[in-house]
Amino acid sequence: MKVMNLIPIKKIAESVGIDENHLFPYGRYIAKVDHRLLKELEGRENGKLILVTAITPTPAGEGKTTTSIGLSMALNRIGNKSFVTLREPSLGPTLGLKGGATGGGKAKVIPSNEINLHFTGDMHAVASAHNLLSAVLDSHIKHGNELGIDPTRIFWKRTMDMNDRSLRKIVIGLGGSANGIPREDGFIITAASEVMAILSLSTDLKDLKDRLGRIVVALDSRGRPVRASDLGVQGAMAVLLKDAINPNLVQTTEGTPAFVHGGPFANIAHGTNSVLATKLALKLSDYVVTEAGFGADLGAEKFIDFVSRVGDFYPNAAVLVATVRALKYHGGSDIDDLHEEDLEALKKGFKNLKVHVENLKKFGLSVVVALNRFETDTEKEISFVMNECEKLGVKAAVSEVFTKGSEGGEDLAKAVTEAIKDSSPHFLYEWEDPVEKKVEILAREIYRAKDVEYTDEARKALKFIKKNGFDHLPVIVAKTPKSLSHDPKLRGAPEGYTFVVRDAYVSAGAGFVVVLAGDINLMPGLPKKPNALNMDVDEDGNITGVS
Amino acid sequence: MKVMNLIPIKKIAESVGIDENHLFPYGRYIAKVDHRLLKELEGRENGKLILVTAITPTPAGEGKTTTSIGLSMALNRIGNKSFVTLREPSLGPTLGLKGGATGGGKAKVIPSNEINLHFTGDMHAVASAHNLLSAVLDSHIKHGNELGIDPTRIFWKRTMDMNDRSLRKIVIGLGGSANGIPREDGFIITAASEVMAILSLSTDLKDLKDRLGRIVVALDSRGRPVRASDLGVQGAMAVLLKDAINPNLVQTTEGTPAFVHGGPFANIAHGTNSVLATKLALKLSDYVVTEAGFGADLGAEKFIDFVSRVGDFYPNAAVLVATVRALKYHGGSDIDDLHEEDLEALKKGFKNLKVHVENLKKFGLSVVVALNRFETDTEKEISFVMNECEKLGVKAAVSEVFTKGSEGGEDLAKAVTEAIKDSSPHFLYEWEDPVEKKVEILAREIYRAKDVEYTDEARKALKFIKKNGFDHLPVIVAKTPKSLSHDPKLRGAPEGYTFVVRDAYVSAGAGFVVVLAGDINLMPGLPKKPNALNMDVDEDGNITGVS
Repeated sequence: MKVMNLIPIKKIAESVGIDENHLFPYGRYIAKVDHRLLKELEGRENGKLILVTAITPTPAGEGKTTTSIGLSMALNRIGNKSFVTLREPSLGPTLGLKGGATGGGKAKVIPSNEINLHFTGDMHAVASAHNLLSAVLDSHIKHGNELGIDPTRIFWKRTMDMNDRSLRKIVIGLGGSANGIPREDGFIITAASEVMAILSLSTDLKDLKDRLGRIVVALDSRGRPVRASDLGVQGAMAVLLKDAINPNLVQTTEGTPAFVHGGPFANIAHGTNSVLATKLALKLSDYVVTEAGFGADLGAEKFIDFVSRVGDFYPNAAVLVATVRALKYHGGSDIDDLHEEDLEALKKGFKNLKVHVENLKKFGLSVVVALNRFETDTEKEISFVMNECEKLGVKAAVSEVFTKGSEGGEDLAKAVTEAIKDSSPHFLYEWEDPVEKKVEILAREIYRAKDVEYTDEARKALKFIKKNGFDHLPVIVAKTPKSLSHDPKLRGAPEGYTFVVRDAYVSAGAGFVVVLAGDINLMPGLPKKPNALNMDVDEDGNITGVS
Repeated sequence: MKVMNLIPIKKIAESVGIDENHLFPYGRYIAKVDHRLLKELEGRENGKLILVTAITPTPAGEGKTTTSIGLSMALNRIGNKSFVTLREPSLGPTLGLKGGATGGGKAKVIPSNEINLHFTGDMHAVASAHNLLSAVLDSHIKHGNELGIDPTRIFWKRTMDMNDRSLRKIVIGLGGSANGIPREDGFIITAASEVMAILSLSTDLKDLKDRLGRIVVALDSRGRPVRASDLGVQGAMAVLLKDAINPNLVQTTEGTPAFVHGGPFANIAHGTNSVLATKLALKLSDYVVTEAGFGADLGAEKFIDFVSRVGDFYPNAAVLVATVRALKYHGGSDIDDLHEEDLEALKKGFKNLKVHVENLKKFGLSVVVALNRFETDTEKEISFVMNECEKLGVKAAVSEVFTKGSEGGEDLAKAVTEAIKDSSPHFLYEWEDPVEKKVEILAREIYRAKDVEYTDEARKALKFIKKNGFDHLPVIVAKTPKSLSHDPKLRGAPEGYTFVVRDAYVSAGAGFVVVLAGDINLMPGLPKKPNALNMDVDEDGNITGVS
């Protein structure tokens, strides 16, 4: 369990000025930092915030996390105090198809195995808090149902951090009245829990408890929302989360500090690490590199229009991660042909990058393209992308942090420091706008649709949202990450299409309206040969197959 | 989060000779101890082992945990190095009816809130490992079912550490073939998981992995057992448990060391803390006080006939905890009248104590009765019990550790040190005996039945057990803890009745056959006003309502 190149976490903490009183070690190389440190540092000026986002993701993999980690190490290398803040991995996908989520090659956060497994137990705490609410809800109905909850209109599902498709749709409460009433239910993966979104957004324990209390779990028989606070359970939920709210401090492979904290989904939630981790990192360093989920149309947009307004910060630059391989895929190349030079496909696929750059500029952001180099990329291909970026008037740098660590990120780090500016926040919509207006702005400006269509279900949902006073909440669009549009088959830069809204619901505790524009699966399944089957541990606790 | 009277866990570790290399801190006051330390201390002589058990439990509460903790503190007070080893609390009951399980008054293990909440995450790790096996099992069936698993004969349910009655009986896999096949299933509470029993029995990571692999999850279409190892998932399960296997070190309210580790059910499992914690404590101190679940008919019997043979240790004395209140209850007093003197009821109820003393002596154990004094006990009542114990030829001592801490346990500690002897192990049955013979011995010798009856279901189950080679495993009888018999209504010392075996199944990984002699509920429910609703946390992280 002793890894030689790891620096004791106490020293990492010292290096950024976190004293022992604010540090709760979990073993020797992981610690939680008391979130109340933020209050003590209130007067201190913020460092610069760099938002790492990406072109539309492809099966080829863009290396956004690796680039974020590498960039933070490279910023450190060229003489700045830097921090990287990332989401925590989820156990389900680690055991399932995806494996770990701690970067790769020479740009990782470590100890990777621990971070990818139980880490500091945040996911488990979220699951406990979530399922407590479920158990109290069903128990309330069984014990007389004083709130008059309509069992056919319960929105609050149960949760588990496991890829378990058999739990997607279930019937619970069977076996007689001692077991409650039979009703339809289902499990979602823990990262998709509203409790996870809330944990990632809360700025202190009071805020956390207030948000938990506002969760809408069901409707009563008269169609009015029933909240967690009506069940009186928000205090116990906050108790279960009182450690989870504290950011997790770890280190990169080069010993620079990293917060890995909060892990909300990037489709039905905002998909960035905790607001507290970012706020705290901004007080502790000159540069904070933070990563948003999926492509810039989803993660970056949500970060700007929603997260930055909750956290009261704004990026001083955006880094758009792209690869030659992904651009060729967007240009029509087959996934199996990406190792072959194809300037034609590259040219076509570059349009995807172009749209994302334009989108980011709409937020007033200074953009740097990080071209994450793969072994199979040819010089011609690299030059093509660099030239096109120049024509587009956007800075670009080749990044080789996977193979070279911080050395491979020097160019990128320099480009980023040059791009840094005091951006004045520029939002695409006002929260006060009606939901339809917010959606139409996003569809037009970001997804490049020509118009928006609503299904009957969506109209009904929006009516409910308006009636119950949730219209002023920001929107979280849940659409496929695989396309700028709502259709996963449309690669590249689709336009002129009709954006279809299928449904909507409110996450009142997290504080947003989720607008569904596609099938969103909140519980993954296991493949035939899940990653779990490759995992093993020997007698000395040495692990293989995790990360 | 800083509690002034807590000693840093590093110092507690130092005081028993655990060096920093073997210590993994979880905050400042909790640490895991590398289980491999045991190997390094192999040559060292064991301390003396004291098994704390109790008369048949009643709603009045006997204070077994409090007495165990108080006794260990008192042993320390009179000049011995002592350790107490306890099971870990389960979150479900803490949030439900029961509240925390960390002792009481001046005899507690601390920090109680943390121990009662997520602690070091062992329960969560057990749940993850358990549910991974479930997910892999259903995924295997969906992806072609090469093993030919019969979906109607799957024994392996899912698990959650929550009191959630709605999950007792469910139907999973609904919603079409993408979600697997529909089948009946259910959740059990995590403490009831065979994985928890395995964790508590394993002596190293290899043993753990081997036991996990031996779990029988289902039958195939030809009626043959399908094991976790057939699914190839034992490696990943062990990976998920690689930290959980390490004993958790905390302290008592008087700063003496305590291991709180492993939390198996006392009915369908053995109900004692981990074998590793006890083995390690025996190497680190003169006296180890360990607690068995429920009354002596269940916890102590299983400890002797099963656990001590797995752990290769044997108690040097047994402490039987009793209260005047509980004895009166066994003598027929109403629960609401226990504060009133009633020598008649006390005399009648004393028979329960007498049977347990006789039973413990059958194991060759030196017995000390610990009379846990309550405020309402009269002098006459106390004297009566003490006199009767003398007549019975058993040492007895009044214990007042709840109100006085170690001072209140001095008499008990002295009685125990005098009672200590090098018992030669004496088992009631041989593992090699057929299951029926083992059950008959227990029914006659311990439960005092006149004969044993088997339902048709039980006979069928025993036939399966024999056919598949599990007949040589020790038996874990799952019966009501509320009576020496299988009938919860029979208080005191029932005899001359027929003991009815209703069913049986094998926990092949844990290594025992569970013999069911009553309704065993493996998933509790929440009461109308669960303990969770009393819980809260303030802005500074101060918790109320947990313990």
